[in-house]
Amino acid sequence: MRKLNYENEISTIETFISQQLKLAGFKNIVIGLSGGIDSAVTAALAVKTIGRENVFGVMMPYSTSIASSLEDAEYLAKKLGITYRIIEITPMVDKYFQLYEPEAGIMRKANRMARERMCVLYDLSAKLSALVAGTSNRSELLVGYCTQYGDSACAFEPIGHLYKSEVREVAKILSVPDKIIAKNPTADLWQGQTDETELGISYELLDEILYYLIDAGKSKNELFKMGYAESDVKKVHHLYKKSEFKRKMPPCPKIIT
Amino acid sequence: MRKLNYENEISTIETFISQQLKLAGFKNIVIGLSGGIDSAVTAALAVKTIGRENVFGVMMPYSTSIASSLEDAEYLAKKLGITYRIIEITPMVDKYFQLYEPEAGIMRKANRMARERMCVLYDLSAKLSALVAGTSNRSELLVGYCTQYGDSACAFEPIGHLYKSEVREVAKILSVPDKIIAKNPTADLWQGQTDETELGISYELLDEILYYLIDAGKSKNELFKMGYAESDVKKVHHLYKKSEFKRKMPPCPKIIT
Repeated sequence: MRKLNYENEISTIETFISQQLKLAGFKNIVIGLSGGIDSAVTAALAVKTIGRENVFGVMMPYSTSIASSLEDAEYLAKKLGITYRIIEITPMVDKYFQLYEPEAGIMRKANRMARERMCVLYDLSAKLSALVAGTSNRSELLVGYCTQYGDSACAFEPIGHLYKSEVREVAKILSVPDKIIAKNPTADLWQGQTDETELGISYELLDEILYYLIDAGKSKNELFKMGYAESDVKKVHHLYKKSEFKRKMPPCPKIIT
Repeated sequence: MRKLNYENEISTIETFISQQLKLAGFKNIVIGLSGGIDSAVTAALAVKTIGRENVFGVMMPYSTSIASSLEDAEYLAKKLGITYRIIEITPMVDKYFQLYEPEAGIMRKANRMARERMCVLYDLSAKLSALVAGTSNRSELLVGYCTQYGDSACAFEPIGHLYKSEVREVAKILSVPDKIIAKNPTADLWQGQTDETELGISYELLDEILYYLIDAGKSKNELFKMGYAESDVKKVHHLYKKSEFKRKMPPCPKIIT
């Protein structure tokens, strides 16, 4: 696994955030705060770069969201000293399913929730003259563990180049609250859900395999020889390939002239 | 302006549509039908490629939408013989603004409408095991005349390489109803709105200037010498530059190792 100099990394991200705002001609950032580590780190980095008065947090719980997620998000926002707002997404999401698709299952509802949050963040970004900061990490992006045009939709990804295990290291340096760092990552779709159970692999192992496959350019065979289980390597490689479309703009046909 | 062989172009698009479905492992396509020429041409091309039984149309009017837009969309769907459904987006859109942002103006509402339609299309795509076909043309994409993560959000753009004036030619070959071809393009956000008034330039002129600037790689000065008005060239160039972010994935910082 690569070894990053986290102090340098933080300074790179600060420069990046400043550049992105300058390019777009904006001074403010709006971020969805889930109570998890990724949005906490992103918010902390935004505050470090542009000051707490220019960062706006939005918590967007659904009726089934875990109460402690909202509490953690509020705790973080207060600690950072940023303005925040709670927008319950239940009325809009339920309205659609009640009126038109009452039979839809949990995955369709989950994707709709993620897209609803994007709609809210983008509307508030227009109100606040702000850019929407993404909160996806490299692990999620590389395996497509996100909703297209939902949580992966943003103006820029401040931690999009950091694996989940690296985000944890940055969180410690930035003094993100311990209870946020310690808790088991979850998309908060149902009670007891965790990312790692859904992905079928621990983030530590996922990150190592992704690093060797993608960043170090090693083959699956080389990873087998290094001692990684064939089933894990194949699973990660499959997730990576199958999610390519989420990392690209929609393709157009080529022109024949 | 370039001269396309439209028969070849249609065949290229058919191959493209087939390839995109095969890559994704899907057999069906879902398309938002606005009653305008772009979605009509896209739907006709989809039907030509995969047959009417695999194409699903969705009309998504808002309370202020022009009644004739829905009528035209239904007329088209019946002519193509595809299954279609009308999903009024007013309840979801209004719920959000009533509850949380009652002061929002028309542009924020318009962007929310476009994103709401994306949410509906993506939910139905999950239900129908279908890909969402985009309906953007090259003129719109190059000047960013679209809502990010709204009408520009899709799995692929069958007519994304064709300028608006070229889409008109394809529409004639595909026997798209005359009343759809003939009407003035509009995003249907308020009574009397037209794209060309909002853009401040006719599509014919826009397409020519874009073609020479982007495809032919000419400089603004060369276009002035060709006789195009300085104000038009500068306007188009400005729209093109200012909308670059809509044509890219959200950027990440570079890693320092």
